[in-house]
Amino acid sequence: MSAASKVRRTHKTWEIVVFERGKYTSYAACGMPYYIAGKVESADDLIARKPEEFREKQNIDARTLHEVVEIDFGKKRVRVRDLEKETEFWERYDDLLIATGASPVRPEVAGIDADGIFGLSTLQSGLNVFDYMRDHLLKKVVIVGGGYIGIEMAEALLERNMKVSLLDMASEVMSTMDPDMGRLISGYMREIGVDLYLNEKLDHFESKIGKVSGIVTDKRTLDADLVILGMGTRPNTSLALKAGIAIGAKDAIRINKKMETSVANIWAAGDCAESFHLVSEQQVHIALGTVANKQGLIAGENISGGNSEFPGVVGTAITRIKDFEISRTGLNEKELKDLGIPYKTSTIISSTLPGYYPGGGEITVKLLVEKVSGRLLGGQIVGKQGAAKRIDTLATAITARMTARDIAFLDLSYAPPFSPVWDPFQIAARGLL
Amino acid sequence: MSAASKVRRTHKTWEIVVFERGKYTSYAACGMPYYIAGKVESADDLIARKPEEFREKQNIDARTLHEVVEIDFGKKRVRVRDLEKETEFWERYDDLLIATGASPVRPEVAGIDADGIFGLSTLQSGLNVFDYMRDHLLKKVVIVGGGYIGIEMAEALLERNMKVSLLDMASEVMSTMDPDMGRLISGYMREIGVDLYLNEKLDHFESKIGKVSGIVTDKRTLDADLVILGMGTRPNTSLALKAGIAIGAKDAIRINKKMETSVANIWAAGDCAESFHLVSEQQVHIALGTVANKQGLIAGENISGGNSEFPGVVGTAITRIKDFEISRTGLNEKELKDLGIPYKTSTIISSTLPGYYPGGGEITVKLLVEKVSGRLLGGQIVGKQGAAKRIDTLATAITARMTARDIAFLDLSYAPPFSPVWDPFQIAARGLL
Repeated sequence: MSAASKVRRTHKTWEIVVFERGKYTSYAACGMPYYIAGKVESADDLIARKPEEFREKQNIDARTLHEVVEIDFGKKRVRVRDLEKETEFWERYDDLLIATGASPVRPEVAGIDADGIFGLSTLQSGLNVFDYMRDHLLKKVVIVGGGYIGIEMAEALLERNMKVSLLDMASEVMSTMDPDMGRLISGYMREIGVDLYLNEKLDHFESKIGKVSGIVTDKRTLDADLVILGMGTRPNTSLALKAGIAIGAKDAIRINKKMETSVANIWAAGDCAESFHLVSEQQVHIALGTVANKQGLIAGENISGGNSEFPGVVGTAITRIKDFEISRTGLNEKELKDLGIPYKTSTIISSTLPGYYPGGGEITVKLLVEKVSGRLLGGQIVGKQGAAKRIDTLATAITARMTARDIAFLDLSYAPPFSPVWDPFQIAARGLL
Repeated sequence: MSAASKVRRTHKTWEIVVFERGKYTSYAACGMPYYIAGKVESADDLIARKPEEFREKQNIDARTLHEVVEIDFGKKRVRVRDLEKETEFWERYDDLLIATGASPVRPEVAGIDADGIFGLSTLQSGLNVFDYMRDHLLKKVVIVGGGYIGIEMAEALLERNMKVSLLDMASEVMSTMDPDMGRLISGYMREIGVDLYLNEKLDHFESKIGKVSGIVTDKRTLDADLVILGMGTRPNTSLALKAGIAIGAKDAIRINKKMETSVANIWAAGDCAESFHLVSEQQVHIALGTVANKQGLIAGENISGGNSEFPGVVGTAITRIKDFEISRTGLNEKELKDLGIPYKTSTIISSTLPGYYPGGGEITVKLLVEKVSGRLLGGQIVGKQGAAKRIDTLATAITARMTARDIAFLDLSYAPPFSPVWDPFQIAARGLL
């Protein structure tokens, strides 16, 4: 919809048709854990713009419950199934944008089809969890996977007074961070009452009368009347694959910086497509709303006749569990080792505010720089209120290829209600000089 | 002390002597308004390191109540007055660092010497205000000047249940921001009960039995039993001037990027010295603790035999009054006009958090970019919690000479408890594409 809106702003008269197999358009998928937690009053609040608004306000022909089932690029047309009427038809295009998103990974294990086992991706999937919780008296949830979804759902379900267990194969939660930082997150989660089962692997699910009742790991059986899958996502590319469009990193649709696929006049953007990583200088797959929005805008500019490039990503992400904030950008130690890039690190524990000012909290910052040049390659932050959003400055510094020295001498803002006189990440940078 | 500590870390055996005419070393001057407000329990909390700690822990001979009254660079020595014993002596140096700071501007008007009229700079000056408030039953304060000190003291004295009036010659408070942004701050200050007298000029003070009792402007007389001067600072350079050391921008000591003055082996750093502005590419005088700390570190590195340069400043600053946050970086419209740099601006009103997420507040962002290149030249932010610290990302982007387009496509962190999917300043940047 980001691309469609951009095209409409540029070309008032072009015909723009959007097919969406679900019921909703333009919603805040990232808001679902907070809806499930009860912090967002109505699911409607998560919808930025409804199909009828696109039709009425922007003359964009947004058709929900319509699934594109085939791309015929020879004839520049797509075959569309009307999911309500159960009919099919062909629609012609001049330019086609594939924005099919990604789906949560569902492991192929026994019992996976029992009721009460949910992944989270579409708005509908969040509504499904909400409705299941409303319709059943649930007490024990097991979350499989300690990434962003896992952590946010742990908070949400603690809010709902459930007993929350979290299972992860890794030694610490949040494996996009280094284990020394992940350990701090694991520790905090235990403190607030999440039962963590780390270094432990899902084997299968147990069920009673079709509903999930337990989860069996390689070490034990855990009771569960609700299971949340937070095992990552896979790009939805079957449509592109069938059409013979090239696939790239992590099974995402291959695109260049203009959002062009391998086939002329076919574009891709968002969670179904690749991105270019500015630090590793490799194609990656990062399924995040910010990236999707920007790629959509670039696709819209180019479909409109522009010549725009999406510069790329640096792998920035942020989340929070209760009042513990978590953020990261760039590459972590494992990624640097895999790429064979020599690096050094600096980790410091400081305070979000000066010691004398009330309300500050602990913050831990880890910086990773290239060994010889000192160029910033990655940053990780955990801590109390105000800690994590500092990652944006590091993401900007990485994009600008700044060194630890550049960062130490950045002219950042300081006043006691906001930060210590040397920002914690500047202290970490000084440790690398 | 920042320089002294750096030298000690590099050279364990060098003799390091520090003369300080006041009683205190290494304190958080910026914390004084919060001490006066009662948010910081003890003035001791503001002291990072006491003279005896410097002596005992770092073998730095820190002598308080010692004033350097003459520099004799021919003989590489300084004349020092022991303010307690009222004696004088000469002390030899190999390298001399001048870090004499700045003093609040005290206008030469009738009545200025009455009791109850305070500027704020040293820790002692803050203690003086605190003690005067403790020893007198004060009801009405007039603050002269609506800059950082003025705004922070307005908050502090509202906390102390005083009737607070603020006088400023400009049309809005906070004249380092553009008037359209300043207007939002003026509006908020009126909302919380500060009486603003703008476009109005101090004429003189009235007093009773030696104590200030009123302030006469070009338009009226205001009752006042306490007056706070927030009219800016002037570098303390009489010592340097007398010695024939060159003076530069805004009467600050001229230094190069290494912190060298015009005289060999004499260095200067902090509020008494110039800085290089990375956007205007001119020497400026910015009396801020962050700059002073960094300059001290660079001076320390170079005195130790290093070859370091302080890259410069971009004019970043931040403050807050109650729950209204204010920040700026780069150049404002007036500064750009004075420099003859063609520019365009983009101002947007958005929310610190997504609309559906509880706790967000209004944020206004103004960006200023070079007209043809789109390069970011300045940024200003006002708004509710979480608004102002975003300035650090803009300060980094300015330092890296990024354009509005670069900023719009930065890979910044997003999650509902932290920000909308397009950060407000990215929305402002998009308005410039």
